[in-house]
Amino acid sequence: MVTTWPRDFPGLGTGAQRLAKHLSDMTDGRIQVQYFAAGERVGAFDSFDEVASGNAQAYHAADYYWKGKHPGWAYFTSVPFGLTYTEMNAWIRFGGGQQLWDKLAANYGLKCVMAGNTGVQMGGWFNKEINSSDDLKGLKMRIPGLGGDVMAKLGASPVSLPGGQIYENLVSGAIDATEWVGPWNDSFMKFYEAAKFYYYPGMHEPGSMLSFGMNASWWGKLTKSDQAAIEAAAAMENDVMMAEYNAKNGAALARLLTDHGVKLRKFNDDVYDSFGEASAEVFEAARAHSPLANEIHQSFLAARKNVGGWTKISDQAYLAQRNRVLEV
Amino acid sequence: MVTTWPRDFPGLGTGAQRLAKHLSDMTDGRIQVQYFAAGERVGAFDSFDEVASGNAQAYHAADYYWKGKHPGWAYFTSVPFGLTYTEMNAWIRFGGGQQLWDKLAANYGLKCVMAGNTGVQMGGWFNKEINSSDDLKGLKMRIPGLGGDVMAKLGASPVSLPGGQIYENLVSGAIDATEWVGPWNDSFMKFYEAAKFYYYPGMHEPGSMLSFGMNASWWGKLTKSDQAAIEAAAAMENDVMMAEYNAKNGAALARLLTDHGVKLRKFNDDVYDSFGEASAEVFEAARAHSPLANEIHQSFLAARKNVGGWTKISDQAYLAQRNRVLEV
Repeated sequence: MVTTWPRDFPGLGTGAQRLAKHLSDMTDGRIQVQYFAAGERVGAFDSFDEVASGNAQAYHAADYYWKGKHPGWAYFTSVPFGLTYTEMNAWIRFGGGQQLWDKLAANYGLKCVMAGNTGVQMGGWFNKEINSSDDLKGLKMRIPGLGGDVMAKLGASPVSLPGGQIYENLVSGAIDATEWVGPWNDSFMKFYEAAKFYYYPGMHEPGSMLSFGMNASWWGKLTKSDQAAIEAAAAMENDVMMAEYNAKNGAALARLLTDHGVKLRKFNDDVYDSFGEASAEVFEAARAHSPLANEIHQSFLAARKNVGGWTKISDQAYLAQRNRVLEV
Repeated sequence: MVTTWPRDFPGLGTGAQRLAKHLSDMTDGRIQVQYFAAGERVGAFDSFDEVASGNAQAYHAADYYWKGKHPGWAYFTSVPFGLTYTEMNAWIRFGGGQQLWDKLAANYGLKCVMAGNTGVQMGGWFNKEINSSDDLKGLKMRIPGLGGDVMAKLGASPVSLPGGQIYENLVSGAIDATEWVGPWNDSFMKFYEAAKFYYYPGMHEPGSMLSFGMNASWWGKLTKSDQAAIEAAAAMENDVMMAEYNAKNGAALARLLTDHGVKLRKFNDDVYDSFGEASAEVFEAARAHSPLANEIHQSFLAARKNVGGWTKISDQAYLAQRNRVLEV
C-alpha cells in the first residue's frame, strides 16, 4: 500500500496508517499490509501508476490528483459547490456514484472505495480582507484543482504548491494567500505568522473524500470474504477520519483565535455569488471533455439537487435553529 | 442477534439485517449470525434483557428504549437539541462518548458500538398549522422519550404508541399529531391521509444513533481479530444506513408533496424558542438522576459546544451559501 501522504501526517496520513493496521488486525493477518508513506517507495503522485501497473496492490489518496488523466476523477474527491460528507456518502452508495467511479477506474485498471473525508474545508488564509470579488483580482493564491480554476476566472492567479513549500512562499510574499484544509491541519503550518484573515466557508472542497484505490486485477482475484473485509475496513476509516476532523477542528480553531491573533472572517454573499458564477463556467469545461465526464457530471448534479434538497430541510435547517436558540 | 425492528422494516430493519449478513460474509463464516426480528425470538423491548443475560449475544436497537433503566441511555441515541450524525460520531469516537457509553453499559453487562443512524428526523404530522407554542396546548401527539417530555412542558399530551398503532389512532382522531422518522419511513405509514401538515426540522431526534449491543462477557472472550471485525462491520453500517436515509428521504418527500397533497411547513423561530426553553427543563431532570447521568450530560454539552461550534462554520455555513446561490 502506497500513499500520497507524508508519514504521520495528521488526519490523512494517520488515517491511512490506521486503515492499514486495522485491515491486518481484523483478518487476523490473513491480509498483510505493508505501508509506504509518500516517498518511501514511490513519490506521492506516482501512486496511481504504481497501483495501476500492479507493482503495489493499493493506494490511499485523493483521486482528484489524477484529474490530468481524466477530469472525472475530481468529482470523486470534491468539486467547487459540491457535496458535503453525508451527501457524498449518499451519492456514492445509493445515488449511482460508485458505479460511475467503477466505470472510470476500470479504464485504468483500478477499483476504488471510500476511505476517509476531511469535511468542509476553510476558505483560506489572506493577508487582507476580501469584501468583494474585486479584492481577489491579481491575488496570488495557492489553491490547486478546480477551486484554483474558479479563482482564475475571478482574476486571481492560482498557484499549485506542495504542502512543504507554502509557508516560505507566504512569508516571503511570493504568494498573498493560501488554502490548505481546516484549523486542525492548518495550525501545524503556522500560516498565521504571515496571513491573519482566516475565511470560511470554503467553496472549493466542501467534503474531500479520500480513496482506497486497488489494482483491479488483484481485487478481482480476492475471495468474497476478503473483499467484504476490505470494504468494511475502508468504510470504517471513512467514518472515523471524518469524526476525528470534526472533533479536533473546533479546538484548533479556538487556539488559533486566542493564542495567535487570527481573525476569523466569513465570505459575504457578494463574494459567494461570484464564486457561484465562476464555478458554473469551470464545470462546463470539465463536462465537455468526454461522454463519461458528462455522465459523471449529470449524476453529481442530480445528487446535489435531490440529496442536497433533503440536507437543506434536515441538517441545515436543524443546525440553524439549534445554534440560533442555544447561541452555539 | 435480536432486534427491536420488524423484519424488513426499511432502513432500521434492513440495515440490521445487512449488518448481520456482512459480519458473516467478511469473516468467511467464522462469526455465524442468526438474525431474529422483533417478536421472532423475544419481543422488541425484551432485547436488552435477552442480551444482558447472555441468552443472545447481541442486539440491534435504539438505546433510548432503555432510558427507564437509566436516563443516560437516551444520550446514546438522540436527545432534544442534541447532536447531528457527524457531531455524534465525533463525540463517540473522539470526545469521550464511547468511554461513558462503555461505563454505563458495563453496569448492565453490555458493550455497545455505533451501528447506524436515521439522521435529522422530521418534526411530525399535524392536522393544523403550528404558528406558536399556544397551538401545541392540549394537542394529543404521539411522541415518545424526552421529545415527548418537551411537548408536555408546552401543554401538549404526549402519547407513546408502537409504530403499528399510530395510523389508526390518527385516523380515528384519538391523537391529533404524530412524529415518526422522516419522509422515506413515514411515507409507508400513510399518515398523510389524516394529517396534511408535515413540519421540519424536528427538535426531538436530530440524529438517532442505533446501537449494536453485545453481551459484555461474550465480547470479552473474543479474539482481538474478531473484535476488530465486529467493530468494522458496525462502523460500516453506521455509514451505510445514514447514506441510505439521506439518499431516499429527498425523493420520498417529493412524492409526498406532489402525489399526496402534503403541505411542508417549517417551525418558526417563536416555536423553536419555546422548544429550547422546555428542553432545558427536561435536561435538568435527566442529569439530576445520578452522578453518571450528570457526567454523560456534561460530556454531551461539551461536544455540542465544541463540535457544534465547528459544524456551524463548516457544514452549516457552507450549506447555507451553496443552497442560497444555487437555489437548491
